[in-house]
Amino acid sequence: MPHPRAVILLSGGLDSATVLAIAKAEGFTCHALSFRYGQRHQAELDAARRVAQSLGATQHVVLDIDLRQFGGSALTSDIPVPKDRHVVVGAQHAAPPHSDIPVTYVPARNTIFLSFALAWAEVLGAQDIFIGVNALDYSGYPDCRPEYIAAFERMAGLATKAGVEGSPIKIHAPLIHMTKADIIRKGRELGVDYDMTFSCYDPDAHGTACGRCDACQLRAKGFAEALA
Amino acid sequence: MPHPRAVILLSGGLDSATVLAIAKAEGFTCHALSFRYGQRHQAELDAARRVAQSLGATQHVVLDIDLRQFGGSALTSDIPVPKDRHVVVGAQHAAPPHSDIPVTYVPARNTIFLSFALAWAEVLGAQDIFIGVNALDYSGYPDCRPEYIAAFERMAGLATKAGVEGSPIKIHAPLIHMTKADIIRKGRELGVDYDMTFSCYDPDAHGTACGRCDACQLRAKGFAEALA
Repeated sequence: MPHPRAVILLSGGLDSATVLAIAKAEGFTCHALSFRYGQRHQAELDAARRVAQSLGATQHVVLDIDLRQFGGSALTSDIPVPKDRHVVVGAQHAAPPHSDIPVTYVPARNTIFLSFALAWAEVLGAQDIFIGVNALDYSGYPDCRPEYIAAFERMAGLATKAGVEGSPIKIHAPLIHMTKADIIRKGRELGVDYDMTFSCYDPDAHGTACGRCDACQLRAKGFAEALA
Repeated sequence: MPHPRAVILLSGGLDSATVLAIAKAEGFTCHALSFRYGQRHQAELDAARRVAQSLGATQHVVLDIDLRQFGGSALTSDIPVPKDRHVVVGAQHAAPPHSDIPVTYVPARNTIFLSFALAWAEVLGAQDIFIGVNALDYSGYPDCRPEYIAAFERMAGLATKAGVEGSPIKIHAPLIHMTKADIIRKGRELGVDYDMTFSCYDPDAHGTACGRCDACQLRAKGFAEALA
C-alpha cells in the first residue's frame, strides 16, 4: 500500500522540523511547504531546505508571497523586534488580551500559510496537513490556539472539492499541547538534528541568532529544560 | 466622521465590480485587492484596474501569488477550458456532487484570497471584507456557498488580533443570493459601467472573450434577463 501524502508547513524552526519528523514517523509521504514572505533574513529558509532534505521530505516547495505590501509586523517591516521581553513558558493562553500580542505577530500569517497548504493538498490528493503551532510555550499569537485550528479545519471541509466529496482534509497540530522541552525530547527520539534548525526573529547579517528575542528565549529555555 | 475602511476582492469581472459599487454606496473607503495568480491572460487584471479607478477605490493592490506551482486547474494549467457546457442558471446548489465541480475550479482559491484580504484588513484597521461570490448563478464551486463564507468568518474571528480584541472582521457577500440579472440591475442603479468588466475564462491573444465558457454563458444570460 502506498504511503498517504501529507503537506507539512516547514519554517526551518525547531517546531516545524519536529512536526516533519512526526509526520514521517506516522508513515506519510511528506511534501514540505515554506514561504518567502518578506522575512528580514534568509537564514530561516536555508534552514528549511536543510531540514527538508535531512528528514526525507519527498518534495520541498518555497512559495513567494509578498506580505510586505501590507506592512504591519516587526517581522516584515521596519518596526524593531522587541528584546528581553519576559516570555511566559508553560502557561496556557486561552484568549490573549491585546497587550499580550507582540509586534512580531504577522497578520493572518497562519491562515495564509494553511490556505496554500490546503490548495496544494487538494491538488496532491492529500487529506492531511501538518502545522507546528503550539499553544503552551508560545508568544501569544491568536492563530496558534486549538480553537483556531479547529475552525480552520471546519472551514476547509466546506471550501474544498475533497470536503464536498466526503473526505475532508485534516489539520494536524501535534505540538499544540506540548512544552518546548517535550517537543525537543520528541524530536531527538525521532532523530531531528536541531543544529540544522533556526528560530531567531532578528539575526545579524551573518545569520547569527540574537539570543534575546522571544523565539531565542523560548528555544534556549526549551533546551535547558529538555537537558535538565 | 471618517468613512470606515473595507477591503474589496476585485477580479475585474461583473460580480466583483458590482460589489465594489455596493461597498462604496454603503459609505466605505474601499481598498481593492486583486491577484496575479497564474491566470492564462491579463485581460482580467486590466479590467480590475479600470474598474477600481472608475468606481473610486482609494487604493488598488495587485498581489503576485504563483498558484501554478501547484497546478490542478484549467485556469492555471494546460487543462482545456470546457466550452458549451449546460450551465444551470437560477438553481441553488446546496452541496454540489463531484461531477458538478468543473475543471476551472481553482483549489482553495477563495480561501487564499480571503486570507490575504484578512491580513490587509487587520493592517488597515478595517473590520469589513467584501467578496463577490454567488450561490445561485454560479459554476458549482464549493467555496461560493453561504455556509463556507460563514465558516471563514468564524475562523477569522479566532485568527486575528481584531477578533481576539472583540471587534471581529465581517465577511460581506452581498451577491450571494442574487441572480446574475439582479446583480446587473443593481450595478446599473449604482452606475457600474459593465463594458469595463471582463468575465471570460479563455479569451484569445487579443483579450477577446470566447463566448462559450461557463463565465461567458452566465454573463450573456444575465444581460439577456436583465434587459428583458
